[in-house]
Order: sequence, then C-alpha cells, then structure tokens
Amino acid sequence: MLTSPVRLRVFSLNCWGIRYLSQHCRERYEMIGELLQREGYDVAMLQEVWSEKDYTFLKKRLTSSHPHSHYFKSGVIGSGLAVFSRHKIHDAFLYRYSLNGYPYMAHHGDWFGGKAVGMVVLNICGMVAHVYVTHLHAEYSRDKDTYLPHRVVQSWELLNFIRHTAGCADLVILGGDLNMHPQDLGNRLLRGYTGLRDAYTEAEKFDGCEEGITLIAQNPFINKKELVPFEKGVRIDYILFKGSGKVSVKCESLSTTKGSVPGKSFPYSDHEALNAVLLLQREEEEASGQADCCTGEVLPALVDMVTEARTEVKVGLHCVERMRYSAARMGVMGLALLLLELAIALVPWLALSVEQPFPRASFYLLGLLCFATLLLTLVLYIFYTTQVKALQGAEDQMRLAVGGLQERLEGRPLCQPGAPNKPSDSPVS
Amino acid sequence: MLTSPVRLRVFSLNCWGIRYLSQHCRERYEMIGELLQREGYDVAMLQEVWSEKDYTFLKKRLTSSHPHSHYFKSGVIGSGLAVFSRHKIHDAFLYRYSLNGYPYMAHHGDWFGGKAVGMVVLNICGMVAHVYVTHLHAEYSRDKDTYLPHRVVQSWELLNFIRHTAGCADLVILGGDLNMHPQDLGNRLLRGYTGLRDAYTEAEKFDGCEEGITLIAQNPFINKKELVPFEKGVRIDYILFKGSGKVSVKCESLSTTKGSVPGKSFPYSDHEALNAVLLLQREEEEASGQADCCTGEVLPALVDMVTEARTEVKVGLHCVERMRYSAARMGVMGLALLLLELAIALVPWLALSVEQPFPRASFYLLGLLCFATLLLTLVLYIFYTTQVKALQGAEDQMRLAVGGLQERLEGRPLCQPGAPNKPSDSPVS
Repeated sequence: MLTSPVRLRVFSLNCWGIRYLSQHCRERYEMIGELLQREGYDVAMLQEVWSEKDYTFLKKRLTSSHPHSHYFKSGVIGSGLAVFSRHKIHDAFLYRYSLNGYPYMAHHGDWFGGKAVGMVVLNICGMVAHVYVTHLHAEYSRDKDTYLPHRVVQSWELLNFIRHTAGCADLVILGGDLNMHPQDLGNRLLRGYTGLRDAYTEAEKFDGCEEGITLIAQNPFINKKELVPFEKGVRIDYILFKGSGKVSVKCESLSTTKGSVPGKSFPYSDHEALNAVLLLQREEEEASGQADCCTGEVLPALVDMVTEARTEVKVGLHCVERMRYSAARMGVMGLALLLLELAIALVPWLALSVEQPFPRASFYLLGLLCFATLLLTLVLYIFYTTQVKALQGAEDQMRLAVGGLQERLEGRPLCQPGAPNKPSDSPVS
Repeated sequence: MLTSPVRLRVFSLNCWGIRYLSQHCRERYEMIGELLQREGYDVAMLQEVWSEKDYTFLKKRLTSSHPHSHYFKSGVIGSGLAVFSRHKIHDAFLYRYSLNGYPYMAHHGDWFGGKAVGMVVLNICGMVAHVYVTHLHAEYSRDKDTYLPHRVVQSWELLNFIRHTAGCADLVILGGDLNMHPQDLGNRLLRGYTGLRDAYTEAEKFDGCEEGITLIAQNPFINKKELVPFEKGVRIDYILFKGSGKVSVKCESLSTTKGSVPGKSFPYSDHEALNAVLLLQREEEEASGQADCCTGEVLPALVDMVTEARTEVKVGLHCVERMRYSAARMGVMGLALLLLELAIALVPWLALSVEQPFPRASFYLLGLLCFATLLLTLVLYIFYTTQVKALQGAEDQMRLAVGGLQERLEGRPLCQPGAPNKPSDSPVS
C-alpha cells in the first residue's frame, strides 16, 4: 500500500529586525506575524530577529497557528535565528561558526550577531525532519570581499554540521540567508557535499521575482547602489531540501514576495520571503542512494570545489597572519614608547618642581596613547590567533576531505560498511 | 554465520604538555611516543597536546605504527586534542564549547585552550566508528567551583553533539579528561542521555589504580594539597563506549598506568593513562534498543538530572549577569570620572602657564586609569553578554528536553517514526 504524499509548506525570511535602525521595524513584525498566522505554514525559518522582544511578540501572536517555536541565542546580540512550527519541536541544537568577521568592524555588526546554524528536529506525520536555519556573514563588497574566507569556512562548517547530524533524518530542510549567489563557491560546496537541492531550480511551478532574486532593486529599503553591478538584484536567500532512502521529496512550487505587500505601504523586509511547497512521499522499500550525494559523477567537481575552498582559506589565513603580525609590531612599538616615557618620567617624578622641557600635557597624553595601544594590540593579537587556529582547522579538515574524495575517485570505497578495509585488528581466536 | 569478534585497543591520556611549564615535557613526549609505538593501540586519544610541535613530533615518531592522525585546532593555543589511529581517518569535525572560563583568569588558562570536542570517523573492519576526544574545563576548587555551570554546559553540549552526530555510527567511543568525578552531574547526564558505558565499571578485568583513579597522590607531578579531601586521588579521565543495533560491544579489560614507568624516573604525565580493550561483535540481525538509552526506567532519573543541570545553569546565569552589571557600573563610573577630568582639564588647556592646584602627574594618571577602565569594562561587558546568551541558549535547550522527557514519561512517544503524531498536514487528495 502506497501512502498518500504529505504536503509541507515551508517559509523563510530575513526579517531585518534591527530595533531603532531598521525602518518600520515594529509595523513589519506585525505584518510578518499576520502573514504567518494567515498562511499557517508548517515551518517558518526566520533570520535577523535580533531582538528577543520581537521573537516574544511573534510567539504570542502565533500561539494558535504555530504553537511550537525556538529562538537560538548566541554571540552578543543573539544569532537572530528563530523557527516557528505547527509540528512539535522535539530537539534543538546550535552550532556557532568559528569565524564571523571582526568585532571592531562594528558598523558591519556581523561579529556581534554570533552567526550560527540552528537545528530543530520535528516529527511530521511520523517522518523525522531535521530543519536547519542559518544566516552567513554578509558580503559588503563583491569586488573586494574581505569576508570571503569567513563565508567559505562558514559554508564548510554548515555542510559538515548538516552532514554529520542529518544522517538518520528522513527529511532535511535548510532555510536562510546564505549571503551567496547561486554559483558562489560556498553554495556549490554546500549543495555538492550534502546533496541538498535548491527549491528554486527544483520547483515545478515558480511564482516570484525574476530569476528568483530575493534582494530586489524595487524594494524601498534597499540602496540600489549597493546592488551594482546586479541591477535587478541578487538571489541570496534559499530553501534547500533533500529526502532519504525512506522518504522522497519533490518541490511542488516555490513563490517569493515581490517587494510590496498588497494594501501596505512597505514590504515585509529588505529581503523577499520564500515559500516552498514540498511533497513528501514515504518509500515502500528503503531506497539507497538518494541521500548519498558523493556518487561517481560529482566526485571530480567536489574535489575541485574543496581545492578551491582550501585556496580561499589559505588566502584568508595569510591575511590574518599578516594582521596579527601588524598587531604584534604595533604592540611592541607601543611598549617601547611607554618604557621610554617611563624612563623620562623618572626624573620629574623625583623633582616635581623642576620645569619640564617636554610639555606635560602632551607627555601624559602620549603615555595614555601608548598604554591604550598596548592593551588593544594585545586583545587583537589574541583575537587574530583564534582566527588563525580556526582557519587552520578548517584547512586541515578540507585536506582530509580532498584525500578521501580522491581515494574514492580512484575506486577505493570510503567508510562503507562491509568494504574491504585492511583489517589490522586481531580477530579473537 | 556469526563473524568472529574484533578486538579494539583504545588508549587515552592527558599529556600535560605545556611547553616550558610542564616538567620534563620533551622527555615525557618521547616516552609517550615510545609507548604508543610499542603497544600499537588501535586508537589513541590524547589531550593537552598544547603545542603543535609536540603533535608533529609524535606524528613523525608514529608514522609506522599509527599512520593516521588528526590534530584539532581551536582557541588561542589550540584545543590540545589529538587522535592517532591505525585505521584510516575518513572524517574529522570539531565542536567548540560555547562557555569555557574567562580570558582574564590567565593563570587557569582554560579559556585560551578553546576547549572543544573533536570527532573522527574511522572504518574498523567495515564498522563505522565515531571516536570523540574531549577535555572539559578544569575544576580548581571543589568547594567553591565557580566553573561548575561552564562544565555543566560543556557536558550538555558534548552529549548533544554525540547524540546528534553518532546516529548512524556502528560504534561510539569517547575518551578524555572530563574533569568530573564519576557521579558528578555532568557525567551522569552524559552517560544517561547518550547511553555511553564507562569502561571502568563495564570491564571484565581491571588492572590499575584503586577505584580506577587517574589523578593519583603518588604521582610526583601532583601537588597533594590540591587533591584534598580525596587523599588517594580522583577519577576524572574516562573511556566511554557504546555499540548500536548492528554491533554489540563489551569491554574485555581496562588498565591504567600506576604513577610510575618501569625503568624511568618519572611518569608519562600528571594524569594516568587508560587502556581499554573492547570486543566488537557484528550482530546477525539488527537489534533495536541497545542504542536507545531513553527507555522507561531511566526516564525519571534523566528528568531529575536535566532539572538539576538547569538549576546549575540558572545559578551560572545569575552570576554572569551580576558580573556584567558590575562591569557596566564600573564603566559608567570610569566614563563619568573621565568626563569630569576633561571638564577640569579645559581650563589649564587654555592657559598652560597657570600653576595647577591639582598635581598634574596624578591628574593625568587618573585620566589614564579612567580610560583603561572604560576600555576594559567595555570588552568585559561584551564578553559577559556572550556568556549570558550561551547560558540562556543551553537553558532553553534543557527546558525543551525536560518537556520531551516528561511527555515520554506520560506515555506519549517522542519523535519515533510511525508514532501517532497529530498529522496537521493536508494529505494530497
């Protein structure tokens, strides 16, 4: 007996919820709450819900339509990630990315957000669904993207987190603002490695902005200059999904908002919302293969991608090491100057009445400056060192991954039960 | 046909490898290398290999006996975690704990270590083994353990990481210095939730220090005063394991070093090494249940444990919030004083020749102090806020877990395929 398929409606939106800074924040949350309540999506994955108050507001508003929800806390401000669900949330787990910008780039603010990937486990009509919501580091300049290694490492950690935690799931859904174009390295890596499929390319019906873009020029909250050279806009928000041997999934339709909301004077956010309708079909016999993405044909592409990612990480590593070196040099100079000043100071200290040839105000101001420099460079040095370690760690993992992929390419099976792995253990006699 | 069991020899040691601070560091690494090479354990899980140079030394030394190894990089110094294996390492992943002491407690040093749990995936005679190595925050005072909430949250994150990533493993092994006594909350929580079994209590044969202690009074590197009131020592290093429906595991024997090495004048480390021999038996028919620990009888105990952990986390939260408040207050005071000074300074600034009633040296020193206070309190405030978020996040997850456990206690099944979960989806007509 073939069971009838289950229709699952999934929603994702970057809410742009910076209190006091984002325009019409409160009104927009009311609109979002109204939309979610009216539409009753099965799962809504929200990003940039920076204030817990706004989460609580939505939670109250959606008590009847979405009785289950989880808000992921991380970083200084919070991860901004929230999930609202009609289905019970059985489990929640968070993975914080090891690299996430710089605290002193306060105007970019990403560091304070503690970017992460949140996971909730749902039971949808007897199927175990792992739902992931994430928001990667923003791209502030495409030409001179100093955060590229950070985003590549975040993608790498994201795909590994999904790979390792979704092993037993019947269904995997990832929603969020990846801050990457469809063909960007991190995005290809993510899809290639996990086997997740893009709802936009898979959807049988699509209704939304041209080419599925989610950051559109017509959106009144968007500075059109920042979109150049992509005049129409860019596609950086995604709903990705995959089934398993037990459940096959297809995307019936995908729709996006189109920059305006009927009857309202402004849209829900500076990003467009995504709404995918997935059809879940329980397989009669457990099929193998659907979940295993690393099959023959994609292997060479995967090797190339991971190699490319490694290069990117190495570039990032080189940059951070240089910055760390600069911080150290600045610190040493600050220390030298401070010691020099102290040496000079020893004389007036002993004879306060003597008139100083060096103006006192400048003298002490300089001392203050040296001290502050020393303190700051110390903190910076420590910070850069954690970044060096994180980048090195990611590179090590990537090296291991390339090795494994290449072995598979050469025909040696990787970690498959029953495979003829050299049994170096002594069987009990 | 019943296949013959596979014998797996597993080793764990906290190497106490602080270069220039730990006594006989180099010589001890040579001894450790010699031991590992001679004994040829299948998997060796090392902690406190703080210097990458020492890891590289071991790697070279063990090229023939342990061709596969991984070093986990994290934090400022590195996580100190390393795995050496006779079996190929197919995959490696790292989870950094969200809470790990305070950077200004530099003499404790834990924060700089970037404590984490490392995972490697091995294929042992066709069985997929997930090997975890970790080192939790040290306990510096048992009576006034200010790090208890940190260790509880680390245990919580550790058990969740294992739970979520080991779903498809045939065999799970965890080794490391948990810095917890066998009946400490975090330890009970870890075993209770994951179903991992303690090699010490499970071993058919045991040869080692009394009660399996791994931090013993006879060890010459140990300050006996620090062990009080546990005169003989404490058991804080563990090898834990579990099988799955496909593979059953039993512990044939466990042995520990006993504080001295024959023919040498000092032991391998300030901790004792553990060596467990596990017997792996592939099950003919997939048995269910062994991996599922959350069965009826342990549920009430689990609810109590998670509730206890929540209380501990709340205590920690209260503490950090108080510290954050103090930092904020101090910062405001520093700012007020600095502004006051600036106001006073405006007069001599305009008329430098006028003799000051307020001694200039003190005046500027005070200014410097205010400035430094302001800077430090700002950094502290940000740091404490990340801790608040991490603790709140853990507490949220624990609340969710208690809810789920209680529902199961009341007889409602949790997230099991085929369970009568209210199907709120519309079946496709």
